[in-house]
Amino acid sequence: MATFRLTILGVGLLGGSLGLAAKRRISDCHVTGYGHRPDTLRRAMEMSAIDEASNSAAESVKQADMVVLATPVGLFDQLLREIAPALKPGAIVTDVGSTKRSIVQSAGSILPAGVHFVGSHPMAGSEKRGVEFASADLYQNALCILTPTAKSDERAVEAVRHLWKSLGMRLIDLSPDDHDSALAQVSHLPHAVAAALVAMQQESSLMLAGKGFADSTRIAAGDGGLWRDILLDNRDNMQKSVDCLITQLHGLSTMLKTGDAEGLKAWLDQAAAVRERMAGKSEGK
Amino acid sequence: MATFRLTILGVGLLGGSLGLAAKRRISDCHVTGYGHRPDTLRRAMEMSAIDEASNSAAESVKQADMVVLATPVGLFDQLLREIAPALKPGAIVTDVGSTKRSIVQSAGSILPAGVHFVGSHPMAGSEKRGVEFASADLYQNALCILTPTAKSDERAVEAVRHLWKSLGMRLIDLSPDDHDSALAQVSHLPHAVAAALVAMQQESSLMLAGKGFADSTRIAAGDGGLWRDILLDNRDNMQKSVDCLITQLHGLSTMLKTGDAEGLKAWLDQAAAVRERMAGKSEGK
Repeated sequence: MATFRLTILGVGLLGGSLGLAAKRRISDCHVTGYGHRPDTLRRAMEMSAIDEASNSAAESVKQADMVVLATPVGLFDQLLREIAPALKPGAIVTDVGSTKRSIVQSAGSILPAGVHFVGSHPMAGSEKRGVEFASADLYQNALCILTPTAKSDERAVEAVRHLWKSLGMRLIDLSPDDHDSALAQVSHLPHAVAAALVAMQQESSLMLAGKGFADSTRIAAGDGGLWRDILLDNRDNMQKSVDCLITQLHGLSTMLKTGDAEGLKAWLDQAAAVRERMAGKSEGK
Repeated sequence: MATFRLTILGVGLLGGSLGLAAKRRISDCHVTGYGHRPDTLRRAMEMSAIDEASNSAAESVKQADMVVLATPVGLFDQLLREIAPALKPGAIVTDVGSTKRSIVQSAGSILPAGVHFVGSHPMAGSEKRGVEFASADLYQNALCILTPTAKSDERAVEAVRHLWKSLGMRLIDLSPDDHDSALAQVSHLPHAVAAALVAMQQESSLMLAGKGFADSTRIAAGDGGLWRDILLDNRDNMQKSVDCLITQLHGLSTMLKTGDAEGLKAWLDQAAAVRERMAGKSEGK
């Protein structure tokens, strides 16, 4: 069997972990890493997250069987334009981005015929950044959302599925639209809310922050630029989600104003029940 | 030295942990536990969280040097009325409640002269409930807010300080007003927001919930009745905090609508910086 040549564009936490995991779990896999910071590439080489480093995106993909975009989503379009002329026929491109409509559309218009794109969103990561936190187990047991469309090449979809499965991920397919709408609710809004909860605090209150506040705002420690790109890229869904939350908060405000003890308890109990069911499914395992 | 007789009203997670810790860390300490559920009292006895069990609040405090209210805050007034006639002169009463204005006021009007109340809010606990999760280390290194007032008996304040210090807590004094205002911002609102984030989800989105959502909504798994009492007891501050968050969300909505990439990044970066500073102080230790 020929060597499987994988190129990872961006070797931060996600890209670096992908390299470590692919090299460990896919036989005869050669990993090339592209990045614009020499320090990051050097570190990725030292950690054996990549076999080869390149500071040219185009150069790095020339021999690639599969290319994974693992930079912040805001850089995807530019990267696609850089690699488009260099990809070999039959090459498969995927990504790890948190939004899917825009990249699926961009890939369709930027990549040449004979190169196949399939969107992925491996839901792994943390508020930590950088290849130094990369781990071969980051993707293990986590959920990966694939967003193939009617136009997707079937062989390419299977190859991308195989990549994430090899890393121990659970797979689910969604349309790019459904993905972005659901993720706004369950991920992008919670991130923005965590930021809002932190932003509204006075220094004197922050001193009193306990474990509850720490847990509920942990995701706000993520990279500002990366999240700005995600929120703006998904801004229509984000606005709907923000409105939805404001409606909930108005409801809460009314229950407080009228002293609606029964309504308040029902609302809190319902949330607790859902949350405990979730905990039983995932965290309790 | 005479035996120190401590009575704990309510032996759940907080009361049970207090009993375990006091018996381990305070010499010659005899702990009486009051509760209305025989099962809970039996379990607390089996765990040696208490030395003696009683299903009468009045009986349980008769010989007490110190009494700690450790039930949900909604039961405090009724408990104070039950124990008021039974307390011995010089007895000291404190509590573990998450709101402080109402209990300080109630204690002032309900307890007889010669009995001294000092409000405490040991900021420990979790979304778990029940004496079966009690631990002698629950209070270790956590923050305890004391709310003595100009009317407080100095000896009583020192005795309450000593109790929490013996359990390894860090102490801070605040007025009941400042406590309730700050806690609405840093604790009660985040709890309500976690509930709102869960309440607004559709089943199909919840399937996609990752670690970020789990972290940011973990506190919503708490007891509905207990939190209803806290939110209603602190409803004026809660409404201000809800308004404050809605203002933040309107700001976010405007940035999304106008595509204000710079403003969005600054807002997210600022929150991330504050959050990382917090992590460095507490979680990173």
